[in-house]
Amino acid sequence: MKNKNLIENFLNGKISLKNFDKKCANLARNHQNSLTKPKGSLGKLEEYAIWMAGWQGKIYPSMNKVDCLVFAANHGVAKKGVSAYPAEVTAQMVENFGKGGAAINQLCDLANIFLSVIPIDLENPTKDFSEEMAMSEPEAISAMQLGFNSVRKDCDLLILGEMGISNTTTATALSCALFDQSIENWTGSGTGISKEKIKKKISVIRTGLKLHGKNFDCVKRIFAVFGGREMAAIAGAVIAGRFFGIPILLDGFISTASAATLTLINKNILDHCLISHLSTEPAHLGILSILKKEPILDLNLRLGEGSGGAVAALIIKSALVTHNGMSTFSDAGVSEKV
Amino acid sequence: MKNKNLIENFLNGKISLKNFDKKCANLARNHQNSLTKPKGSLGKLEEYAIWMAGWQGKIYPSMNKVDCLVFAANHGVAKKGVSAYPAEVTAQMVENFGKGGAAINQLCDLANIFLSVIPIDLENPTKDFSEEMAMSEPEAISAMQLGFNSVRKDCDLLILGEMGISNTTTATALSCALFDQSIENWTGSGTGISKEKIKKKISVIRTGLKLHGKNFDCVKRIFAVFGGREMAAIAGAVIAGRFFGIPILLDGFISTASAATLTLINKNILDHCLISHLSTEPAHLGILSILKKEPILDLNLRLGEGSGGAVAALIIKSALVTHNGMSTFSDAGVSEKV
Repeated sequence: MKNKNLIENFLNGKISLKNFDKKCANLARNHQNSLTKPKGSLGKLEEYAIWMAGWQGKIYPSMNKVDCLVFAANHGVAKKGVSAYPAEVTAQMVENFGKGGAAINQLCDLANIFLSVIPIDLENPTKDFSEEMAMSEPEAISAMQLGFNSVRKDCDLLILGEMGISNTTTATALSCALFDQSIENWTGSGTGISKEKIKKKISVIRTGLKLHGKNFDCVKRIFAVFGGREMAAIAGAVIAGRFFGIPILLDGFISTASAATLTLINKNILDHCLISHLSTEPAHLGILSILKKEPILDLNLRLGEGSGGAVAALIIKSALVTHNGMSTFSDAGVSEKV
Repeated sequence: MKNKNLIENFLNGKISLKNFDKKCANLARNHQNSLTKPKGSLGKLEEYAIWMAGWQGKIYPSMNKVDCLVFAANHGVAKKGVSAYPAEVTAQMVENFGKGGAAINQLCDLANIFLSVIPIDLENPTKDFSEEMAMSEPEAISAMQLGFNSVRKDCDLLILGEMGISNTTTATALSCALFDQSIENWTGSGTGISKEKIKKKISVIRTGLKLHGKNFDCVKRIFAVFGGREMAAIAGAVIAGRFFGIPILLDGFISTASAATLTLINKNILDHCLISHLSTEPAHLGILSILKKEPILDLNLRLGEGSGGAVAALIIKSALVTHNGMSTFSDAGVSEKV
């Protein structure tokens, strides 16, 4: 999908978005209630199946084509030493994805998910947001457009993930600005840094927020200020999902923070997104409370790469195989509730 | 596996049980720490892989042969009208399992799990525990032995589930007796009964506990008093798992309550069992708190049939594919933590 103006048009409220098909969801709910199980006894699996039906506009939703997009980018703030790993690991991990050696490769194979890894200008990190703007607004728009263009419009379910050394620093700064939250409470250990390094990370984020302020009402500006390109790309892909009517699984903290910027435009813009899992990063729970979204899984994951999304896709698949494959009470000759 | 005396010998502490292989688990942990991800970033998936390694005694554990056993039986207490469904649904659902129409059929197909449904004397329900003993002690032993004999000793992972109209009533009575808990707090809505019917259910359980008392120090006696045959069979299968060294996924409330009886003999007897999901039945959370076990999933399931176990198997599989398939830092040429 190439349409250069789509992101600008979206940001100006000029494109029409797909909405949840309530009629279809109601028919899916009726179908659920006819299946050989006590009504509601499959709990959230029933809700996920109905949710998929509403977004796909199909009473019997499918997961034949599931895409996982992993956007990768580098962050200028990495030079401040806020991560446990050197910045070159971003490119090294992209190579690892290409060779099939990373967690997301194994998980996509297991769940029959088509994985695309999209490195964005790795040799050209964004600037250090604690010193200056991470990038220009046109660069931010361009990364969003790249994300939008990466989405296949015929996919049944889209998983969004990322890779970018130091991007929990960027995402925490962006989230604290977006939701006016305490840096101390929302900063976590990322890839696993020491308490000393967490203090450093907090101080770097504080410097950035002092420099740029916390008042943002514009998506392209917040990405331009903090970065990163992979995060802007995720936001663009979320817009594409809503434009085409594709349900989305956001992976963890970074993906959720990236998508959450879009609530500046429309509070319901993420209705087509589920949260795959609860990250151990404290800001994730904070954002989810604000967005009123419950994660599908809680496995103490903090890897990124879409890994939680690929695991959550198995839960959605469990929801669909029961929804689509079970017998009804009348077909099976099972007595209904007395 | 046919050995008539194994259950009696187990109950008398006369058979030797397999224990967790700590050395193997440590080697599996070292392997996890060499993989291309921040240490610990796959959270519980890492723990599950290491747990499987310890119980299978293999650094690279496998899930080639996964069995799901669903035991079905009828309960005399059903005649008190404590369920939303008539007792004949047990047999009807067994037929539905045979034809592939139930939730567990779809979930086993998805996860490549071999499903065996084992109806136990359906035409001969246990007696109503609120009026008399549900069965004799030899009958309870016999159901346990049947469960034991149903386990294939070469399976990599065993899922235990059940079907039995009114068995939340039986399991709640048994659990309240076993752990000396409040009937009011631990009684739930089972298949989805009205508030009025819950009151009835509580009153039936109270009558049963008054009749039989709450002091049990003997596994065969507690099953003989309350039933059911499917629950005793689950306990027998749990013993078999520990005898052969097979890791087990207990499904939900009924399976957990059945297995929990074995703690009368040995507090650590369930170390080879994980809890697949947190049931909406209130007694489940209560038992898990006492057993100090955390469920893998929390999806508001309350179906039984091993359904939560089959979904949880996908999480364990996610743990193993990453553990067994990922590249190490040195193989992939990725820089380690600085």
